[in-house]
Amino acid sequence: MPRYQPMDASVSPRFVGIRTFMRLPYVTDLEDVDVAIVGIPFDTGATYRVGARFGPAAVREASALLRPYNPTQAVSIFDRLSVVDAGDIVVTPGFIDDSYERITAHLEPMLRAGVTTLAIGGDHSITLAELRAVSAVHGPVGLVQYDSHADTWDQYWGHQYTHGTPIRRAVEEGLIAPERSIQVGLRGGLYAEGDYALSTDLGIQIVPALEVRERGLPAVAEMVKTRLGAGPSFVTFDIDFLDPAYAPGTGTPEIGGFTTYEGQFFLRALHGANVVAADVVEVLPSFDHGAITALAGAGMFYELLSQIARRKG
Amino acid sequence: MPRYQPMDASVSPRFVGIRTFMRLPYVTDLEDVDVAIVGIPFDTGATYRVGARFGPAAVREASALLRPYNPTQAVSIFDRLSVVDAGDIVVTPGFIDDSYERITAHLEPMLRAGVTTLAIGGDHSITLAELRAVSAVHGPVGLVQYDSHADTWDQYWGHQYTHGTPIRRAVEEGLIAPERSIQVGLRGGLYAEGDYALSTDLGIQIVPALEVRERGLPAVAEMVKTRLGAGPSFVTFDIDFLDPAYAPGTGTPEIGGFTTYEGQFFLRALHGANVVAADVVEVLPSFDHGAITALAGAGMFYELLSQIARRKG
Amino acid sequence: MPRYQPMDASVSPRFVGIRTFMRLPYVTDLEDVDVAIVGIPFDTGATYRVGARFGPAAVREASALLRPYNPTQAVSIFDRLSVVDAGDIVVTPGFIDDSYERITAHLEPMLRAGVTTLAIGGDHSITLAELRAVSAVHGPVGLVQYDSHADTWDQYWGHQYTHGTPIRRAVEEGLIAPERSIQVGLRGGLYAEGDYALSTDLGIQIVPALEVRERGLPAVAEMVKTRLGAGPSFVTFDIDFLDPAYAPGTGTPEIGGFTTYEGQFFLRALHGANVVAADVVEVLPSFDHGAITALAGAGMFYELLSQIARRKG
Amino acid sequence: MPRYQPMDASVSPRFVGIRTFMRLPYVTDLEDVDVAIVGIPFDTGATYRVGARFGPAAVREASALLRPYNPTQAVSIFDRLSVVDAGDIVVTPGFIDDSYERITAHLEPMLRAGVTTLAIGGDHSITLAELRAVSAVHGPVGLVQYDSHADTWDQYWGHQYTHGTPIRRAVEEGLIAPERSIQVGLRGGLYAEGDYALSTDLGIQIVPALEVRERGLPAVAEMVKTRLGAGPSFVTFDIDFLDPAYAPGTGTPEIGGFTTYEGQFFLRALHGANVVAADVVEVLPSFDHGAITALAGAGMFYELLSQIARRKG
Amino acid sequence: MPRYQPMDASVSPRFVGIRTFMRLPYVTDLEDVDVAIVGIPFDTGATYRVGARFGPAAVREASALLRPYNPTQAVSIFDRLSVVDAGDIVVTPGFIDDSYERITAHLEPMLRAGVTTLAIGGDHSITLAELRAVSAVHGPVGLVQYDSHADTWDQYWGHQYTHGTPIRRAVEEGLIAPERSIQVGLRGGLYAEGDYALSTDLGIQIVPALEVRERGLPAVAEMVKTRLGAGPSFVTFDIDFLDPAYAPGTGTPEIGGFTTYEGQFFLRALHGANVVAADVVEVLPSFDHGAITALAGAGMFYELLSQIARRKG
Amino acid sequence: MPRYQPMDASVSPRFVGIRTFMRLPYVTDLEDVDVAIVGIPFDTGATYRVGARFGPAAVREASALLRPYNPTQAVSIFDRLSVVDAGDIVVTPGFIDDSYERITAHLEPMLRAGVTTLAIGGDHSITLAELRAVSAVHGPVGLVQYDSHADTWDQYWGHQYTHGTPIRRAVEEGLIAPERSIQVGLRGGLYAEGDYALSTDLGIQIVPALEVRERGLPAVAEMVKTRLGAGPSFVTFDIDFLDPAYAPGTGTPEIGGFTTYEGQFFLRALHGANVVAADVVEVLPSFDHGAITALAGAGMFYELLSQIARRKG
Repeated sequence: MPRYQPMDASVSPRFVGIRTFMRLPYVTDLEDVDVAIVGIPFDTGATYRVGARFGPAAVREASALLRPYNPTQAVSIFDRLSVVDAGDIVVTPGFIDDSYERITAHLEPMLRAGVTTLAIGGDHSITLAELRAVSAVHGPVGLVQYDSHADTWDQYWGHQYTHGTPIRRAVEEGLIAPERSIQVGLRGGLYAEGDYALSTDLGIQIVPALEVRERGLPAVAEMVKTRLGAGPSFVTFDIDFLDPAYAPGTGTPEIGGFTTYEGQFFLRALHGANVVAADVVEVLPSFDHGAITALAGAGMFYELLSQIARRKG
Repeated sequence: MPRYQPMDASVSPRFVGIRTFMRLPYVTDLEDVDVAIVGIPFDTGATYRVGARFGPAAVREASALLRPYNPTQAVSIFDRLSVVDAGDIVVTPGFIDDSYERITAHLEPMLRAGVTTLAIGGDHSITLAELRAVSAVHGPVGLVQYDSHADTWDQYWGHQYTHGTPIRRAVEEGLIAPERSIQVGLRGGLYAEGDYALSTDLGIQIVPALEVRERGLPAVAEMVKTRLGAGPSFVTFDIDFLDPAYAPGTGTPEIGGFTTYEGQFFLRALHGANVVAADVVEVLPSFDHGAITALAGAGMFYELLSQIARRKG
Repeated sequence: MPRYQPMDASVSPRFVGIRTFMRLPYVTDLEDVDVAIVGIPFDTGATYRVGARFGPAAVREASALLRPYNPTQAVSIFDRLSVVDAGDIVVTPGFIDDSYERITAHLEPMLRAGVTTLAIGGDHSITLAELRAVSAVHGPVGLVQYDSHADTWDQYWGHQYTHGTPIRRAVEEGLIAPERSIQVGLRGGLYAEGDYALSTDLGIQIVPALEVRERGLPAVAEMVKTRLGAGPSFVTFDIDFLDPAYAPGTGTPEIGGFTTYEGQFFLRALHGANVVAADVVEVLPSFDHGAITALAGAGMFYELLSQIARRKG
Repeated sequence: MPRYQPMDASVSPRFVGIRTFMRLPYVTDLEDVDVAIVGIPFDTGATYRVGARFGPAAVREASALLRPYNPTQAVSIFDRLSVVDAGDIVVTPGFIDDSYERITAHLEPMLRAGVTTLAIGGDHSITLAELRAVSAVHGPVGLVQYDSHADTWDQYWGHQYTHGTPIRRAVEEGLIAPERSIQVGLRGGLYAEGDYALSTDLGIQIVPALEVRERGLPAVAEMVKTRLGAGPSFVTFDIDFLDPAYAPGTGTPEIGGFTTYEGQFFLRALHGANVVAADVVEVLPSFDHGAITALAGAGMFYELLSQIARRKG
Repeated sequence: MPRYQPMDASVSPRFVGIRTFMRLPYVTDLEDVDVAIVGIPFDTGATYRVGARFGPAAVREASALLRPYNPTQAVSIFDRLSVVDAGDIVVTPGFIDDSYERITAHLEPMLRAGVTTLAIGGDHSITLAELRAVSAVHGPVGLVQYDSHADTWDQYWGHQYTHGTPIRRAVEEGLIAPERSIQVGLRGGLYAEGDYALSTDLGIQIVPALEVRERGLPAVAEMVKTRLGAGPSFVTFDIDFLDPAYAPGTGTPEIGGFTTYEGQFFLRALHGANVVAADVVEVLPSFDHGAITALAGAGMFYELLSQIARRKG
Repeated sequence: MPRYQPMDASVSPRFVGIRTFMRLPYVTDLEDVDVAIVGIPFDTGATYRVGARFGPAAVREASALLRPYNPTQAVSIFDRLSVVDAGDIVVTPGFIDDSYERITAHLEPMLRAGVTTLAIGGDHSITLAELRAVSAVHGPVGLVQYDSHADTWDQYWGHQYTHGTPIRRAVEEGLIAPERSIQVGLRGGLYAEGDYALSTDLGIQIVPALEVRERGLPAVAEMVKTRLGAGPSFVTFDIDFLDPAYAPGTGTPEIGGFTTYEGQFFLRALHGANVVAADVVEVLPSFDHGAITALAGAGMFYELLSQIARRKG
């Protein structure tokens, strides 16, 4: 049996206990750890609504509802994986350079120790710092990004680092392999006609939302797996991939989006991909209601965890 | 013309008046009554979020928006049925055995008098007490359950009666006929791999959510009608069958769920079934917003009422 | 380059500035104006929930998230159109006759000057006053109405003017051409079996929600275009066309409705229609949450604007 | 023992039952009735936020928390009074003249039968219609008004009847005796320097909020009793007398206001006054939270009821 | 320096980290512990609104804002005390007898080890179980209860254990010394004239809210200290002592209540009392807004902690 | 008559129109302007809750309720002052140095032109940038700060510029005259015993909240006026000076605070002071409810405007 396990709901009701992810042990020592959930409560990169610094706490709270056996992936997660909540990375609100350094410095040793890190954002700017750590350990990775925005703009108001630019930076810094990278679900208005080309010019494949609907989910899921191939890959799930009806608590919502079922479908369909790290970002609790966005975020981690458990099993 | 009718919206605006269901007369005498709406504000069976005791009030408030002619079922409900709001059953918060006795004792004479009872929960634990009354009058009934959870666990923390166990108890007590029972829409994580077998081992057919999507709604609706057959049947609709986007106000929400349209579809498709009693449970107003969950609950009653009216007509 | 443009988000972040629609200039002079957004904060016509007087402010706030290039219509709106926010029309709360006169008197010169007016409601009663202005300039127009209610009732409590009657009045007053008019998405209970015939007897085509699902969206979109033909047309979009999960903030929500994607689909599919004026009505902020209804409303204007830009280009 | 009594909380928990005021019987027959609570869900008179039509339902819901013995007035209300909830008066939203006629016609026979009416608003415009009924039975009455606004403006936008004008109309129509009338708690900005003189020129005494603080509550309470004298009197309590911290759910909130304790103090201090009818108005649930405004409204009725019980005893 | 300390806000921002109380270490071993915060997420005793099971999580979240030096008590808490968050006690929702046994069994060894326990409720029924543990160690204790309700009713619906009865049970079981016990702030309606005598007949002194205002806070604070004397004492603070404007998120709110300043005043004034254990109960997050009730609860713990630190220093 | 005036509520209802402050003209040209309201939607300085970037929009929305004559200061504001809404200053979210430069550069010419600027925050970090502009024009100014925090910490996490440090920076940069500066209302926990000395060591006088209560408001108001003297002065009002019951929507709420009446009292009592600029900061709408915090913020501006009008008249 893996060492670290969630509290047992047959012993203590799910509303009991300190709010770690799935009521897992809060452990910062890396021994016997397969997967670590880590909060990155940074939101200074946000260009519109802000407050995703409270995202990790909200996702943890909602995660109490998750149960250990995932029937859709037919896997008993904790029979295969030792999972911990490693707490939050200390960031510096208002100061992105500092925060990036802290995030990367915190994650790199974890990844180097063979731990798969699942990060709870925080705004999407944190993905760059995560990728710096990931590529330091694994080299340039394949990237699959579920998102309504490509986040490949060059800058905002003369500044390089915001939640609208991390993917461009990641390519420029050689952190991801564009030929193994794909963005799914892009939608909403653009600043200019050429905005989608910002991604494709970098070598990243894109599947805008309308194209997802035209091709159908299974075909797109197949495209993703083909694109990622067998190499080490990073999954980034921006909660605004979901429609505001399903995820109102986010920074730059876009209507016409996807359901949680569709989000689950894509993550379930990753089976076989070599996911070395992942994140779910842009959960912004102060615009949420009934905690449905946090619940959606927790549910996406659940599919990622199940995926990792299946691969390991 | 049936005796009891809702207030006429052409006479008084729909926000006027004491909040009974659809502004029907509040009547506790059973004469000339075909269908009685009855609130069961009990929520001590809840294992996570709690507060469904305010569900009946919220569903009544939302029901003011319902109108007498249902075009999708082509039926003018109150031309065929005399319907009343029979108020709430007095329950004892914190004490499930007492409350069960009160619920059963209250409903049995109503059912015996030929009244079809539509109960507004309350958490799902109340269904057991309802079924005790129903089976006392009609014998073991067929059960169709729209729900994300099977509620066939054996116990929680050593206790038999919670909102996670009523269906197992109902089989054990011989209240339902498993061979005429079916559960539709199951989804979300499980405690263990064998959890779905808890239902099938009891003889109940299950159609998990993914299977619903694979088979398509019409096929599953047909399975339900076949399963129920012509015998007396009970419909239980847990509002968490719906996705949290559609029903955020509930106790144990599960993402990846169904729309209200799909809920309506299933209830409309019951045509021909011999529904002797039904409930809609787990509406929890303090986690709702914009009253959309209450509205969804009211809408499900509306399809049930229309169904009963068509059968009678 | 058209004269009036939104504030440039590459210069000032989208949360900066006075809340005009899309941060366009607030201009009341009609010169060099192709399209004018105008708020009509009137809600005295509401028969259930009330408060859509705050709809224009909420839609403007949400519209800050819209960007100038619409990839799904492949159009850079402000390269083709000079658009302004013309502010609100002064209405008199509690007094519908006065308000109607003010609305019509305000809009008619704008339309006569060749400006396409896009009105933010307010409740649906305002559409009658808009149509009076429109028909004074363009003659009887084709009408496409996306709505869960037909709004062709004759009266409420002996009164002619409410948000449930404007379309009947519009036919009676000769403002719309019924043979070029169509209502899409009708659903929810009716007061009587003949309610749908209230529309068809007036000569208006209807496509109830279930029929939309049966025929499929593309077929219905085609019906709309065929019905409207080449003549001047008016588009009215009642936000309750959308499901309460997508648009909780509205006056008379009906479950079983449409997604924002479906709303966008229909408006995008209008391409080729000769839209001379339009409105989006019944956004009611005090029942909204996370501003998702306002965001949906803003998004519908975005598709309308894009449509008009494409036609002009 | 008086005939009509609330449901007994020792028998049924307070969240059980149809939501009448204090779970009193819903009775429209006047026999054996001392006091009738009546809802007047009219809000077309509102000039800013609107939606007080849902005030009666909210106050009834909150009133479930009230208990029969009031220790601060040392009175067991229902040992002395037979009290019923007489339901709502049918009003016509959007049409104030009609609604006024309906309100007056409904109340006058009740008052003539010797019933003390306690009306739940609705916006403050309803008080005029109430006073028409009251004065028809009792002649011109003394008026005590707890409010942040004097409501003695002459008109709004050329119209006589709004929630800002009822007190002026009442004087003009001879419904109240100005020399026995007093307004307490006025505050907030005015349209012009002479606005307070609008009241005093009509002969009504005013005590603005600052003066209340300077004189102290007991002195002002004494002024009220002296002013009202022994003649028949009407008490109108606008919930915006309270500070928005205590009563956020209202139409035209004014900061710098009073606490619920202070509201209770004034109503308790009315002892000896001859209250023949009263109302609590402007509870607007869609801007409330945690139901605290509705609870405050219910609490004010509680003090009024206690007052009437003491006088009768 | 005491062993256990909160996370240092000069190192990590206050929104960073697992949500323990004040971001203290989560420690269940009792060595080197002076004070332990312990959550008791039990709410089955609630007779109206329910959901205080989420109170501990909410108070912990809000407590992140507290800082180590309390200027009003002039004490640097963690220079004197080693404080930990001991997590939650496992309770059984729906089953009060079981839960009582678990609570008492959990606390008794802590108290016996010399730890001062500060419990976060949960509804007020938990206080009985706490007192069983406390008296087992310290003998009958003095009790000071800040509350709008005396909680000395004998039973509800034939049942002995609810949140309205713990103080009567505590006297009957000999857990508290009535002659050293006092209840402060009682207000709101009663079921019967004799309800206050339920306390005094048990030998407990009461100071209803009106008497608090008449005597003034300092005099009442002195009465409390005199009453408690030098013996071991228990402080129970029901958050509904505060007015709903200050603490909307609670189960049975009563208007006309106290401010947070007044709550702080009373707890600060306890200086010199020998507090061996304490609780703050009835924080019910699903009715809270802006977390102000949770913040008030956290603030009351802060004064208690400061008090204990001063006494130890 | 001064040139710029608010929209006239006797002509257009207060919910009509583009949301400028008090529906004043949006004017960026300085001619004929006495006072300019200017939004500074910057919140990167926030160390806990964040989102005050939406403060200006919320305060403007709430300000529609303000009326031109202030009876407590006996002044008809717009008979004396020409006031405009100058819109928002373009800031760069996430980048405080840039934003500071933009703020100062924007305000300095306004102040130099003799305009009194009233800034709507944004978090408290903006005050430093305002003071740089103010002192460039007026030299070092007297400062009165109503706040629960002194904001004189030296740094956070090694960074100089946050919302906890502006006042220290202002002294260091010579922008304010400490001997003419005073901080009123300080409360809440501190990081260390010496925290209050951080202010006094800089030469700033402090009056903590408890001292305000001991001395009484009039005495403290007198201290403020004495301290400011006749020289040019700056008023900064942090909305967290108010208790969370009155101002829940703020970044670092502290219980035990002041009422809006007390806030109004202090600003009214400034009469005679030479206020050359002012701000109200830390209104954070996503934690507000019923808009009461925004309303409180608008009300504080109202007293400031009235003050300035009186001085000018």
